[in-house]
Amino acid sequence: MIVEMGKGATRQQVDHVVKRAHALGFEVQLNLGTEKTVVAILGSDTGKTATDVFAVLPGVESVSRVMKPYKLASREFHPQNTIVNVNGIKIGGQKLVIMAGPCAVENEHQLMETARAVQGLGASIIRGGAYKPRTSPFSFQGLEKKALKMLATVKSELGIPIITEVVDIQNIEIIAKHADILQVGSRNMQNFALLKELAKMRHPIMLKRGYAATIKEWLTAADYLLAEGNQQVILCERGIRTFEDSVRFSMDISSIGVIKRFSHLPVVVDPSHAAGHFAYVPTIARAAIAAGADGLLIEVHLNPEEALVDGLQSLNIPNFERLMAELKPIAKAVGRSI
Amino acid sequence: MIVEMGKGATRQQVDHVVKRAHALGFEVQLNLGTEKTVVAILGSDTGKTATDVFAVLPGVESVSRVMKPYKLASREFHPQNTIVNVNGIKIGGQKLVIMAGPCAVENEHQLMETARAVQGLGASIIRGGAYKPRTSPFSFQGLEKKALKMLATVKSELGIPIITEVVDIQNIEIIAKHADILQVGSRNMQNFALLKELAKMRHPIMLKRGYAATIKEWLTAADYLLAEGNQQVILCERGIRTFEDSVRFSMDISSIGVIKRFSHLPVVVDPSHAAGHFAYVPTIARAAIAAGADGLLIEVHLNPEEALVDGLQSLNIPNFERLMAELKPIAKAVGRSI
Amino acid sequence: MIVEMGKGATRQQVDHVVKRAHALGFEVQLNLGTEKTVVAILGSDTGKTATDVFAVLPGVESVSRVMKPYKLASREFHPQNTIVNVNGIKIGGQKLVIMAGPCAVENEHQLMETARAVQGLGASIIRGGAYKPRTSPFSFQGLEKKALKMLATVKSELGIPIITEVVDIQNIEIIAKHADILQVGSRNMQNFALLKELAKMRHPIMLKRGYAATIKEWLTAADYLLAEGNQQVILCERGIRTFEDSVRFSMDISSIGVIKRFSHLPVVVDPSHAAGHFAYVPTIARAAIAAGADGLLIEVHLNPEEALVDGLQSLNIPNFERLMAELKPIAKAVGRSI
Amino acid sequence: MIVEMGKGATRQQVDHVVKRAHALGFEVQLNLGTEKTVVAILGSDTGKTATDVFAVLPGVESVSRVMKPYKLASREFHPQNTIVNVNGIKIGGQKLVIMAGPCAVENEHQLMETARAVQGLGASIIRGGAYKPRTSPFSFQGLEKKALKMLATVKSELGIPIITEVVDIQNIEIIAKHADILQVGSRNMQNFALLKELAKMRHPIMLKRGYAATIKEWLTAADYLLAEGNQQVILCERGIRTFEDSVRFSMDISSIGVIKRFSHLPVVVDPSHAAGHFAYVPTIARAAIAAGADGLLIEVHLNPEEALVDGLQSLNIPNFERLMAELKPIAKAVGRSI
Repeated sequence: MIVEMGKGATRQQVDHVVKRAHALGFEVQLNLGTEKTVVAILGSDTGKTATDVFAVLPGVESVSRVMKPYKLASREFHPQNTIVNVNGIKIGGQKLVIMAGPCAVENEHQLMETARAVQGLGASIIRGGAYKPRTSPFSFQGLEKKALKMLATVKSELGIPIITEVVDIQNIEIIAKHADILQVGSRNMQNFALLKELAKMRHPIMLKRGYAATIKEWLTAADYLLAEGNQQVILCERGIRTFEDSVRFSMDISSIGVIKRFSHLPVVVDPSHAAGHFAYVPTIARAAIAAGADGLLIEVHLNPEEALVDGLQSLNIPNFERLMAELKPIAKAVGRSI
Repeated sequence: MIVEMGKGATRQQVDHVVKRAHALGFEVQLNLGTEKTVVAILGSDTGKTATDVFAVLPGVESVSRVMKPYKLASREFHPQNTIVNVNGIKIGGQKLVIMAGPCAVENEHQLMETARAVQGLGASIIRGGAYKPRTSPFSFQGLEKKALKMLATVKSELGIPIITEVVDIQNIEIIAKHADILQVGSRNMQNFALLKELAKMRHPIMLKRGYAATIKEWLTAADYLLAEGNQQVILCERGIRTFEDSVRFSMDISSIGVIKRFSHLPVVVDPSHAAGHFAYVPTIARAAIAAGADGLLIEVHLNPEEALVDGLQSLNIPNFERLMAELKPIAKAVGRSI
Repeated sequence: MIVEMGKGATRQQVDHVVKRAHALGFEVQLNLGTEKTVVAILGSDTGKTATDVFAVLPGVESVSRVMKPYKLASREFHPQNTIVNVNGIKIGGQKLVIMAGPCAVENEHQLMETARAVQGLGASIIRGGAYKPRTSPFSFQGLEKKALKMLATVKSELGIPIITEVVDIQNIEIIAKHADILQVGSRNMQNFALLKELAKMRHPIMLKRGYAATIKEWLTAADYLLAEGNQQVILCERGIRTFEDSVRFSMDISSIGVIKRFSHLPVVVDPSHAAGHFAYVPTIARAAIAAGADGLLIEVHLNPEEALVDGLQSLNIPNFERLMAELKPIAKAVGRSI
Repeated sequence: MIVEMGKGATRQQVDHVVKRAHALGFEVQLNLGTEKTVVAILGSDTGKTATDVFAVLPGVESVSRVMKPYKLASREFHPQNTIVNVNGIKIGGQKLVIMAGPCAVENEHQLMETARAVQGLGASIIRGGAYKPRTSPFSFQGLEKKALKMLATVKSELGIPIITEVVDIQNIEIIAKHADILQVGSRNMQNFALLKELAKMRHPIMLKRGYAATIKEWLTAADYLLAEGNQQVILCERGIRTFEDSVRFSMDISSIGVIKRFSHLPVVVDPSHAAGHFAYVPTIARAAIAAGADGLLIEVHLNPEEALVDGLQSLNIPNFERLMAELKPIAKAVGRSI
């Protein structure tokens, strides 16, 4: 950490900073500039200490970090890429993983038909919401346990893994019985109570980025999972909130490059929630693959016009088929396969 | 809802929209413009229907809401101001309510001394975190049950109500035993599972705005609480995330005017979390009172330099005293008292 | 336009709205709902009228647009794609256009060597800043006329078109003598005085998106150019400002899809200014091509370590060569060529 | 500046950084940590050097500033408050300055009547747009020279100073003949060519914050004016763009505290452009005074329903009168007068 003293800071105030650093077990190097004094706080654990600890001291003007606030998710800590293994399907390897299915499980027929169709077109994991976090209390909230059973049927009949969202601690156990990947939604990225309990299940976990979270906060949230000893973490970029209103969220495409540079975790993209409209799903999906994402999470509905949730952002089967055909050559162009 | 058809939309596509509206029990009025057809969907419950239901239909270009997505929190539904009563202390009335105390409860001495001091200076509710949602898993996470006991001691000794945050469903009951107001933090504003369970407790609930939530989403989240029959809801504005980096969050001061116009719920301001630095707390606190907020939630620490959490944004007692002196004439100037 | 009256609006207030609409030459259709009255204002020119005209009337709660605020840039007005022709090089056609070169022209050697290198690697237009809009008055402001001469030399020696930025009206003429494409920078997107004068020159104009402009505002700014009769307009997406701080600006990749849907103008991407760091330029460039952009504007420097401006975001020649090799198969995968 | 080397940086790479710093005339202090090397670059002029100069060197992971990028606008450089004197009216002193008038000058009667009314109610400077930067080319663009004459008439008849906006270099001279304060609009905050020319006029200049500019960028833009030797600079906060859509821009109220801490320049607030709706103007105006702003810039129209520009955000005379009555006791409460 770098502590910048204000212009008129006294020697006593500088000493105070130095003492505090020593008390925390850090080394200190003083830089007595002509105009300002700068104190470098050194040690491998400074990333775990809040900058406030120094910023609050008298005479200090600002404090900036050198060490990142996350550790376990960083490439410095773990240089090789992590590959998550879901019943033999590898996320983060050469082959891209397509997870597809309805936003919400609505009934057995809808789910099974959609699953069969997307599996036939190249999806290797089925998504489907059982418990739905809805903005309005008057909206459809999901079929809950009934949906889990339908997902289990799909899994056993089609031999394909299942991903579904966990929205509270109470339902972790029942969901973990049926699902192969536990999904943490955008609104729960910093629901730390949930993260700690989830990590204990040893299932692969997909951590969606909070729609207003920085990449640093996202990787620090991943540290909650990794700190519990669960290494099976998949990141999912799903767009961030900006002033642009032609889409629901703005896909932060450069985050793929940033994640690949600073973290070892695999990262997939959800073009459906970012776009909010099926017309833009292919644009984002193609860009994601070209940017280097390890897979996609796509909403597909037999008949989007009749969808109970998020129909506008769902692809129908022919549109999904067209998209898969578009993605294959792009994957090949970046040295991957689908 | 207003459905705008695309330029080349066919009569059949327009009819499709009309049929869908009728099936949902709405009235329809057609506007056949020279260039575009516009369909008005009318009925008192359109606010509860997602715009996607129509946006997904072929030929539709865009759908915009006329009814707001929230209902119970709206002034249209409930024209008079709601006043929340916490053991005789009224939030939303003529008298402003100051809630103050440490970010986190650290020990009995610290809490009691701070409480005594702020009560003596005009605070009528004590805040103190027992369960802390921290960005990093390596940070101090709160004293939990021990902190609740210390808060209970303060309450019985000083005869002052307590507000503390609930971070997950499992702890609602124990917290509800000791606290007078249950606080929902910014990161949990859309933790709907938590909201539903909380509302059942019949305690007053303070709902902090998500730092990237629109006012509409905030009031819609309040509907989750109100829909369970709990009318004791206090809103708390605590700043939103923007590109400006000189403060932790940007206080959205005009939200006070928007809330007062469209909702009947009382709204208080948390200048501490917005500022992120004690130097800016008075600026925001003064502005909040002048803007029309019903109270403040302020972090105060006996010795911010030694605080375990958020010391930088905490006022020490002399600074709190100075602020209270500044606020009194402003309150008077806007026809309120402290 | 759709005018929503407040709940208690009187018949007289509704009539007032209707009269105002008639006075402006619009048709009106009334929707007398059970709870609220909605007035649809119809006519092909409503896009040119501010919503304020109605929002300000007593009893009105809100006004929303159906017609877009831009007209000439819209696909509704001009259904076929516009292809801009720069001395035989077509922007917006099947072949992607790569514009490359230094951020600022520094000297003749640097410019000529860079131009030769990037031309040899597939660039068909040379970029180079002569007049630089710098955030700080203490930074290098460009070589101005000297730079224009150097650009002219490159043009005549290598037979390749030149693009350079115009930062004020006074220099339009001299720049227009030497440059083939006149570039409007992000900070000038809404410098309407500049836009009007520029449009008179009949050169192709590249309009960069303001870093905090919505797509609607961007296309409306393009209308300023088109309204002067200049149809040679190229859009350039260069990232928007968000709370994410790992890059300088967040590339708004879905804007490519939105532009292609609602406008006929070609759109290129500037990955260098968005990234702010050479490490992320390839991520964004690959994504842009896959998303459907018509070309790229890339900063290349012989020796970024010695660059006077923006060295960090510049590719050196080997990195540019590597990127071009990466882009070719992606272009092919989306049915384009480089 | 603090240069953080990457984990595996070689001694040679560190030396390269040191040499570059020495070449630029800076002192260097090395911090050889156990995990990472940190190089402190010291000297009073580091604020004028781009961080890129070091960030681009091999082995460097990140570079952060200690010195601010602006200098002349900083309180470190000029500790006492600057008070701008406009024909005897002082901006930045104990007395608050209210500038009021129509968004655009529409005709002589409207302007004179409005000016007379607001002067009578306490305004000491008249605002009125002659040249209007409008988002759409189809909107009213201002009366230009005719408006300037009308403003001059108001000035001579009422003996009150005039503020009006300059949108391009060509009109500086004619505007400077008639206006007392030259206003730079939000969209031109970084129109550096304009700033440099304006500063030569020696008139007081009001620099509006760009709606997506950070405070640092704003103060750095002020440095363009101050560097030309013009010390008569007034800052104007007018709201920033965020995701919140209930107002046109979000008033960044804490910026008042930040400006007062780090700069010596006076700062006024424009509640009208931030709000976008007259209903929220009083909320923001009251908050601004309480926060410590030195004055307000308010749009007032005789009959907002008939306004050619921005009627929705204009107060009519009775509303302005009511607001002035509300502001007086708040001003007094913070030790100021109106």
